[in-house]
Amino acid sequence: MSVSGSSSAMRVAQDEIAVRTAPRRSFDVTGEVASVVREHGFVRGTAHVFCRHTSASLLVTENADPTVREDLARWFERLAPTGDAMFRHTAEGPDDMPAHARTLLAGHSLLLPVADGELVLGTWQGVYLWEHRAAPHTRRLFLTLTGEFELPR
Amino acid sequence: MSVSGSSSAMRVAQDEIAVRTAPRRSFDVTGEVASVVREHGFVRGTAHVFCRHTSASLLVTENADPTVREDLARWFERLAPTGDAMFRHTAEGPDDMPAHARTLLAGHSLLLPVADGELVLGTWQGVYLWEHRAAPHTRRLFLTLTGEFELPR
Amino acid sequence: MSVSGSSSAMRVAQDEIAVRTAPRRSFDVTGEVASVVREHGFVRGTAHVFCRHTSASLLVTENADPTVREDLARWFERLAPTGDAMFRHTAEGPDDMPAHARTLLAGHSLLLPVADGELVLGTWQGVYLWEHRAAPHTRRLFLTLTGEFELPR
Repeated sequence: MSVSGSSSAMRVAQDEIAVRTAPRRSFDVTGEVASVVREHGFVRGTAHVFCRHTSASLLVTENADPTVREDLARWFERLAPTGDAMFRHTAEGPDDMPAHARTLLAGHSLLLPVADGELVLGTWQGVYLWEHRAAPHTRRLFLTLTGEFELPR
Repeated sequence: MSVSGSSSAMRVAQDEIAVRTAPRRSFDVTGEVASVVREHGFVRGTAHVFCRHTSASLLVTENADPTVREDLARWFERLAPTGDAMFRHTAEGPDDMPAHARTLLAGHSLLLPVADGELVLGTWQGVYLWEHRAAPHTRRLFLTLTGEFELPR
Repeated sequence: MSVSGSSSAMRVAQDEIAVRTAPRRSFDVTGEVASVVREHGFVRGTAHVFCRHTSASLLVTENADPTVREDLARWFERLAPTGDAMFRHTAEGPDDMPAHARTLLAGHSLLLPVADGELVLGTWQGVYLWEHRAAPHTRRLFLTLTGEFELPR
């Protein structure tokens, strides 16, 4: 597939998205990421989305049935329980250390393929920001697009 | 190490691999990925392999003793058990939601370094597609190669 | 933000870092990675750091309170216990298979954004190599920098 055409240039563009979260909720950011891709005239390569926080995740999961994310929330709670006696880093509250652990479990960074100016995702894949803390935060996502961009006409 | 030489060009190439899976089995795809790298004349950079599904993983693990992957299968079953009462997303069966959770745990996307036209892996690292569902599927892996390619002579 | 300027060139550079570890300890390698970025005159893009081993992790977590990493160590021990009877791959000792599982859990590869010649991290994010084995090892990290580099003047 794919080769550089004469109407594109190989370069890098960077941008930032800020998301205001709610406690322990997930936010579909697929559309926001796709918008940044389009606005930059990015045609082909990879979109890196990096969450600059250690208690919120960026992840890809099923986007059709919201029960999937409710189940994942319960699973996170089982694997890294709020207020677990094992955790001694409790200065910021009983949800702080479980949030760090859940961030490791589910990841904080995604690399998504882009072709023909669109994210290449499976039919049922959505991109989610997951707030692991028990309070709302503003989470900053840093995007790096690497590959071929449309040339200005 | 490395600098662009005059006999290479910086660009992006993309390709796709389809793998027919068997229930809850892992498949060594190291050779398939290395073949795509070679076929495209890709010399230096990164190979991104992205699984377009939310119930199959792409992961790197030990490739010498198959018992490692049998142990991982048992570990996945313990951490996200088939038919666990915690999971309410059961429309597609008792293996559906555990498959989503295991995909999060083990990942669905890999970025592999390439140098001198070869994947840069440790001696004991293999690249595996892991089918988490209890039925066979055709899993599509989308590859993006970013970096230096041989120039056509 | 960002566009290629006339004083930069799009290319790839690669390098390697070796870290001598201690048993089940974590090592802050943020400075080492930032040094490689600077030495190569890398200005903008992504830094890929890939651990060429299946029993050591590369991860990003909180860098302010060392208790966070002590808690993570206990959490790893709970989720993949040393000497667990479930694990049959024991040829290299009771810490071998848990180390493979923990590597899957916490990851073995990172992609970090770089802008203006610096790693783009959150205030509290540190980059850690985590030795999961019960003996010291020399762990090799393979770096690929992709994007814009300063032109030699």
